[in-house]
Order: sequence, then structure tokens, then C-alpha cells
Amino acid sequence: MKKAIVNIKQLVTPGAESFAAGADMERLDIHSDVSLLIEEGLIKSIIPSSQSVPGDYEIVDAQGMVVLPGFTDPHTHIPFAGERCGEFNMRLKGKTYMDIAAAGGGINNTVTATRNSSEEELLASALDDLKLITRHGTTSVEAKSGYGLDLETELKQLRVIKKLREISPLDIRATFMGAHEIPPEYKGNKGGYMDLLIKEMLPAVKEQGIADYCDVFCEKGVFEIEDTRRILAAAKELGFKLRLHADEIVPLGGAELAAEFRAVSADHLMYISDKGIKDMVEAGTVFTLLPGTTFFLMGDSYAPGKKIIREGGILSLATDLNPGSSHTHSMGMIITLACLKMGLTIEQALNGATINAAYALGLSDKTGSIHKGKQADLIFLEAPGYEYLVYNFGVNRVKRVMKKGEFIL
Amino acid sequence: MKKAIVNIKQLVTPGAESFAAGADMERLDIHSDVSLLIEEGLIKSIIPSSQSVPGDYEIVDAQGMVVLPGFTDPHTHIPFAGERCGEFNMRLKGKTYMDIAAAGGGINNTVTATRNSSEEELLASALDDLKLITRHGTTSVEAKSGYGLDLETELKQLRVIKKLREISPLDIRATFMGAHEIPPEYKGNKGGYMDLLIKEMLPAVKEQGIADYCDVFCEKGVFEIEDTRRILAAAKELGFKLRLHADEIVPLGGAELAAEFRAVSADHLMYISDKGIKDMVEAGTVFTLLPGTTFFLMGDSYAPGKKIIREGGILSLATDLNPGSSHTHSMGMIITLACLKMGLTIEQALNGATINAAYALGLSDKTGSIHKGKQADLIFLEAPGYEYLVYNFGVNRVKRVMKKGEFIL
Repeated sequence: MKKAIVNIKQLVTPGAESFAAGADMERLDIHSDVSLLIEEGLIKSIIPSSQSVPGDYEIVDAQGMVVLPGFTDPHTHIPFAGERCGEFNMRLKGKTYMDIAAAGGGINNTVTATRNSSEEELLASALDDLKLITRHGTTSVEAKSGYGLDLETELKQLRVIKKLREISPLDIRATFMGAHEIPPEYKGNKGGYMDLLIKEMLPAVKEQGIADYCDVFCEKGVFEIEDTRRILAAAKELGFKLRLHADEIVPLGGAELAAEFRAVSADHLMYISDKGIKDMVEAGTVFTLLPGTTFFLMGDSYAPGKKIIREGGILSLATDLNPGSSHTHSMGMIITLACLKMGLTIEQALNGATINAAYALGLSDKTGSIHKGKQADLIFLEAPGYEYLVYNFGVNRVKRVMKKGEFIL
Repeated sequence: MKKAIVNIKQLVTPGAESFAAGADMERLDIHSDVSLLIEEGLIKSIIPSSQSVPGDYEIVDAQGMVVLPGFTDPHTHIPFAGERCGEFNMRLKGKTYMDIAAAGGGINNTVTATRNSSEEELLASALDDLKLITRHGTTSVEAKSGYGLDLETELKQLRVIKKLREISPLDIRATFMGAHEIPPEYKGNKGGYMDLLIKEMLPAVKEQGIADYCDVFCEKGVFEIEDTRRILAAAKELGFKLRLHADEIVPLGGAELAAEFRAVSADHLMYISDKGIKDMVEAGTVFTLLPGTTFFLMGDSYAPGKKIIREGGILSLATDLNPGSSHTHSMGMIITLACLKMGLTIEQALNGATINAAYALGLSDKTGSIHKGKQADLIFLEAPGYEYLVYNFGVNRVKRVMKKGEFIL
């Protein structure tokens, strides 16, 4: 299968092939008026439009569009059941979290719905989410459990992710996140739940081989530093790669812990300390920032993206797609927020949403940039230039999406 | 021509038929499981799904979607030439307005491009904008001059708007805004430009009958209060209805002036005074707020939308679509910002984007709500409920758009 995408007005790729740290995040390679040759779904070469395409290539006309690598979204909470739209609207009407919790809202709402859903229902809902995700140009995505909080439902979520990997053309990575919250039935008995997590859930997930990563919500009042350390140690022992929800609400030291464990990524980081930044830079742990969450929760505390880049960090961006705190499928929206609310440049944000996001999922050897040998995971923007991703805010300029050389939109 | 839209899961309309002021902005009428009957492009009635549709109606299946009135966007700057994407990117990279002005940027950039564009080029560009506007659910829109700043180009812009009205299915209202800025050739000679405006431009525009409104950028260092008063008085004398860009950068008293002149609308209002609010409420002048501008300029000073509603104001929302300070075509994005950044409820924001926006353009007798006798200007959301406009932020859920009973998307 040989394809030549011709009539590309502008082809834009991160310069880095593996990841871009610090100042390197400013780098994009921009090719004007080129054709892109693809062989067996992989990038072969970029040639000038003036050069003729070999006769055995199928011609695909890009119609003067802008071609970019597909986005990777390295932090979502699919699959989940139900929605929390009413709760969101209560919040807009001035209700507090306490009011909402009292009305049965919050994460437990989603836990109950997910427990009560069949595998087929969860799958159907996640496929709908993947459709919207694809429509916005994402071609690789992370998915996780964590709305089960019991062995059966956590495994159910992970089986759904496994099924998604079989059905969907997207690259999908699976994370086990039983440590997302203390379930209601263990209220006041965190130790009991930790035992369940460590002694039953982790080994069962490991045995079934259905999760690449283990993640913990490391936060005051939930899994504190010592709790998280215990869970991460057990997960590491079993061979899981690690991710962490860290320093989202208070500066607890989650970033430092992520660095200590050489986690692949620590995410959120709105309240990361200077030492946390330094430790993560040294450990090579990715800083995955989720500005949609701050925006959706009507907050002002965005993670210090500019500082992280200044200090040499590997910054990636993600949607945090979930029904409660960040209900968006659009990496374009996230890139816009990273620029307008965190002060990143478009170039930095694009590196964050492509090569670094792919690196955060261990996928940058095959996606995240347009380099020879990588998958032809591409998006086609109907726009004069890549800057329109942000410059034309609120408008999805993604017209077509290609995964491994095949159009999926 | 009789059409029955069947299988509507939820039909949502402002309760008000003309405008909604203050507390009334909370009101939406929500009909579940209904059909909508349309005759000759006008709303005839809403009937329960259980009731059978008369045999002479053409059946349109809404496929369980949510039906809302099309949005009205009562403040855009189309038609314009060129883009200011590079300037935007400079801003993200830390350049100041002074740097950008020194590099030939800012509004003069667009003025030069617009002067140098042919009528055909401007028309083509504006039609592209209308396509994106339509895709996001807007069915009525305001357009204005103001990137000419000389008689010839201002008339050219207005002729383009006239042409748009002939070609496009959308309802379009035209505003003359020669007083958008002092053109470079009158630098240091504002009096000279004011004379040109009042003695030549206004009468010429009037004579050609190609503008419904006259608008002035009332701001410190541009057209100050007394300048604005002179222009508005001259425009009123000639029979123009009035709009105003007011109190956008400093609290100058533009709102008070708009009220004094019984302007139809005063727009922006980030720095409106308490007296300005009171005066506008008494005068019945619409408060048209443009949160996209604050967002795009990376500011924090959103107009006090909640306070305006509390004081009984008629609040409308608009994109401010222009190449420099708010480059979005999406009223959904504006509604999202009105909720998440200004603190409006979804119901208030929807009233602001439909019935009140239509009222701000003198169109609420025929659009802006789903009531008998009004045009069937409708949007079809692929979503479980109207709240998804905000709840699923960054995702355009508008699947189909109908204008006067005909699908235009």
C-alpha cells in the first residue's frame, strides 16, 4: 500500500523524534508546498510539490490543507457511565461541592453508574467518546479504570479498554486506577481499601495483562504521600509502569514522589513545588498538564507551564476527559487553553499535544511527529496555517484524520 | 410548504417572545418528545410526539436530537481582509502591543488590507466566515464597516454586506462604523476625520440606504465622550439607529451616553460603571457582552454579566468576530465563556445568545425563539440536552441548521 499525499500547503511536525524538553519545545519543522509519501501505513518521505510522485503511489489530494501529526491525548477517564451535566449546571447556579455531594453528586455518582452498567453499555459509550475524540484530531489516547473501585468493576472497565483496542483504529494505552478514590463502602476504612487494592486488585490486573500503567490520585484526604508510596511500590514490584495524579488541589509532594519512582508521567500539577519541578526534570518524568480541568472548574490556578518549560521539563497536554471535572474531547481546546491561559506559545503547545504526549504514553517511537518510519497518523486542517488551532479559537479546523495511512475521518 | 419535524427529544426555547430582562433571562421553556410543525418557513405549533402529524406535512426526522432556536450574533466585524495570525503569535511570545504596532500590526494592518482588497475578495472572505458561522449554529448576524476609514472603502464594505444579504440565507443587519479608529492619514487631526465622517460619510451612507445602524468606538484616546456625542447626534439626525462600543478599556461613560441616546445596544462594557448599568436598564438599551475578546486578549476583566442581570438588564452575547481581538465564529464558545468566565447560568447565556441577541438587532419579532409565527430558524444538537452546549466545552454539537424552514447545514 503506497500513498502520496499531494498538494499539502504546509506540513508541520515537531523537530524532535522522541520528546522535546524545555527550549526544544519551541521547535517545529515547517515544510511548505510538499507531498508526503506513505508506504504500508508508515511515513516514507517528504518531497517538494515540484518533484513528481512515483507512478505506483495512490494519489491523495490534500487540497491545500495544513498537515500535522495527529494529537495524542495521554490522560482521559474513558470508559465511564452516565453524565454529570445536572451537577455541572448546579455548580453554575452557585451550588457548592458540598451541596452537590449532599445531592448524591460527585465522583460517586459516576462510580455508581459505572458499577450498574454492563460491559456492552460502557463500550458503546466509550465508542461514542472515541468518535468525538477522533473528530477533533486525536489519533492516540490513554484510557483508564477508576470508576469501579471494586475488583469486578475495575476489571470490567479494563476489559472495555481491551475491547476498544481491538475495535478502534486508534492507539490506546490502558491504565489501572483503582486508587482513584476511597469507595463509599470503605468510608473511614482506607486501610481496608488499600489492602484490597494491593493484595487483590493489582495482582488480578497484572495476571490478566490488561493494563500498561498504574495510576494513583495522590491528594490530601484521599491517597496521601505514604499511601501513594505503598501503592506505587506494590505496582512497581509487579512490573507496572507508573503515572500519578499529583498536586492538583494542594502542594502535597506528589511531583517529588513521581520523580522518586521514576514514574512515566505526573499529571495535573497545578500546585507543584519548585523542588517537584526540579526532581521531575532530573527523573525525566513527563509533566502532563490538563488546563481544561481548571477552566471547567472555573478556577484560576493553571499549572505553571511556562516555568516547567523554562526549567527544562518535558511538558505534555491532555484533556482529562471525564464527566465531572473536564468534559471535553477536544485537544484543540486544550491547546488553546494552554496558550491563552498558561501562556505557552503555539509551538510549545503543539509539541505538548503531539510528540511529548506520545512520549508520555510510550508511543513516540511510532507516532507524535512526521518522521520516516513512524505511522502516518495525520490531521488535515482546513486553515491557512497551523496557528489557526489557537488563532481561530473555539472552531475545530480538523477536516480529515488519518491513522496508519487510512482515513478515519 | 409544510414540514413536521418529528422525533425531537427536547425542544428548548426562551420563554420570552421579544426580549428577556433580568430575572426573566433564567427562563427557558423545555418541551420533551415533541414534533414541530412549520408552514411556509414559519413556526406553526409544537405538538406531543404521541399526536399524529396531518398527512399533508413533509416529515423531517430529528433523530432524537435537541432543537433550539438558531443563535443570533449581534456583533461581528465581517467583512474584513487578511488575518492577524502572526501578530497573535507575537503576542503569545511576549511581544507587547507597542512592539506589534511598531511592526505594522494592529487594526491598521486590517485597514490597509481591506482598502487593498477588491469587493469580490472581501465578499469571498466574508462568505467563508458565514460558512463557519453557520456551522456553529448562528442564523442571524450583524456585520459592519470600520476597516475602511475612508469614504470609498467604508462604502465598499457596506456594499459587500448588502451583497451578503442577497446571497446568504441568514438574516444580516448592517452597521456603519466609520468611527472605528482614526485612520493613519488623519493622525493628529481627529477633527478633520470627524468632519469627514459627519459631513461626507454619514450622508453618503444614508443616501445609499445600506446601513441600519451607526456605531462608534467610544474610548479614551480614540473617540472620546464629546466626539462620540457629536457623531451619534449627527447619525440620529439622519435617522440611523445607534449602537456603541463602550467602556471596553477604561470606564469612560460610554454606557451612560448610549442610554442618553437611547442606543439599541452598547457593547463590550468590561469597565461599565454602576451608573452606566442603571442608565442603560432605564433606557432599555441592550448590554451586548463579548467575552471572547477578553479571553483572546488573555485578560481577566470580563464584563459584569451577573450584576447586569441582577440589575434587570437585557443582556445579549456576541462573538466580536474580527481578525485582531476575537477571532472566533462560534457562539457556542461564547456561551461557554459567558458561563465559565462570567458566571452566567446556561439558561441566561442561552437567552443572551438567542432572543436577546435577536432583540439587539431588531429581529426578535421574527427569530430568536420558537414561537408561533416566527421563522423556523433552528439548530439541531446531537446531545442528550441543551446543557451540552457548555457541559461538553470545546465540542461543537450543532449537527444541522435550519433557516426559515430550510436546512442550510
